[in-house]
Amino acid sequence: MKLFGYFRSSAAYRVRIALNLKGLEWDSESIHLTKDGGKQYGDKYRSINPQALVPTLQEETTYLTQSLAIMEYIEEAHPEPPLLPRDLAARARVRALALSIACDIHPLNNLRVLKYLTKTIGTDDGTRMSWYHHWLSTGLDALEKMLAGHPDTGSFCHGDSPGLADTCLVPQIFNANRFDCDLTPYPTILRINKNCLELKAFQAASPENQPDAQ
Amino acid sequence: MKLFGYFRSSAAYRVRIALNLKGLEWDSESIHLTKDGGKQYGDKYRSINPQALVPTLQEETTYLTQSLAIMEYIEEAHPEPPLLPRDLAARARVRALALSIACDIHPLNNLRVLKYLTKTIGTDDGTRMSWYHHWLSTGLDALEKMLAGHPDTGSFCHGDSPGLADTCLVPQIFNANRFDCDLTPYPTILRINKNCLELKAFQAASPENQPDAQ
Repeated sequence: MKLFGYFRSSAAYRVRIALNLKGLEWDSESIHLTKDGGKQYGDKYRSINPQALVPTLQEETTYLTQSLAIMEYIEEAHPEPPLLPRDLAARARVRALALSIACDIHPLNNLRVLKYLTKTIGTDDGTRMSWYHHWLSTGLDALEKMLAGHPDTGSFCHGDSPGLADTCLVPQIFNANRFDCDLTPYPTILRINKNCLELKAFQAASPENQPDAQ
Repeated sequence: MKLFGYFRSSAAYRVRIALNLKGLEWDSESIHLTKDGGKQYGDKYRSINPQALVPTLQEETTYLTQSLAIMEYIEEAHPEPPLLPRDLAARARVRALALSIACDIHPLNNLRVLKYLTKTIGTDDGTRMSWYHHWLSTGLDALEKMLAGHPDTGSFCHGDSPGLADTCLVPQIFNANRFDCDLTPYPTILRINKNCLELKAFQAASPENQPDAQ
């Protein structure tokens, strides 16, 4: 397996955590998202990922895209240890927690969107940061409630072993810290994030520990 | 089962299609997204969906959120007819097609984001429409390539029966048509959309056929 990613990409970071939690080995290839206008926009990378987004997971001659689809694939191909619980409603809960980040926070605050605000709309730095903070806090306010108010929340988002929702939570909190966000209103999220970061699978996946970290 | 939704919500529309494809019966409750500042923001709805987004699916005393998590639940609880193929790489492909819409087009162009552009940033109508068209065309350009260039694309996104990707594609195209987007660059998407709309499951789920349609 080969993972095409970028050290700082939240979506690639999620997949690295999932691969590590499963104890899988993989090669990596860095797709530099900013150098020379972005390597992801080159014809070569677009031929394996027409969206020009990272990550892409290569399995022999097949290229899998979209971090959540890749992680569901990893879960189905390598069931142990599970990233999703067995109970159907519990699986839906974990997926909803993951999607609340992957659909409703991250896409609004990623690099291409922040660039569009600055370069195309011409917003100033303050407006761009307010945008970032608005969608982050809207998302984390809800996530904190979904976690703090639920009996199945444990040391991790669901129970006492890390899973799919945690693979999305930790990169989002890493990203929020890069943008100097005040996370004190989110004690449950911070507690889970801390528990995750004590595990080797999460540490090894961290942006600063990637070969392409600058 | 009860679906809390809104006739025009793309995410609720996806779930209605999935429920219909499975031949399931359900009650519906309309959460009016614009009247009186938005019913989704009321304490009552927030208590079942802290994100204040539609849809929510009620299964007895459990409330499931996030359209893709709900559809994965429906797929697992009611396997026939399947919304996902059997082969693992094919499942990943279908999920990636669905997520390319659900993560990378829809969240950027939904009501709350367009409102933020106008009311908080103060962009004019032209800038807001350029924003909409930019993220739509970026997403559909990639989706057209992912579909047109793949041997598994059939009458529908994957093969000759409708599935998870189609439940996302049709609401996105409905939305694009509302915003008068030129879709002629996307012949494969338009062909699949047309095939879907010939099926009763899609017709019955269409916004104009919902009780709360205005």
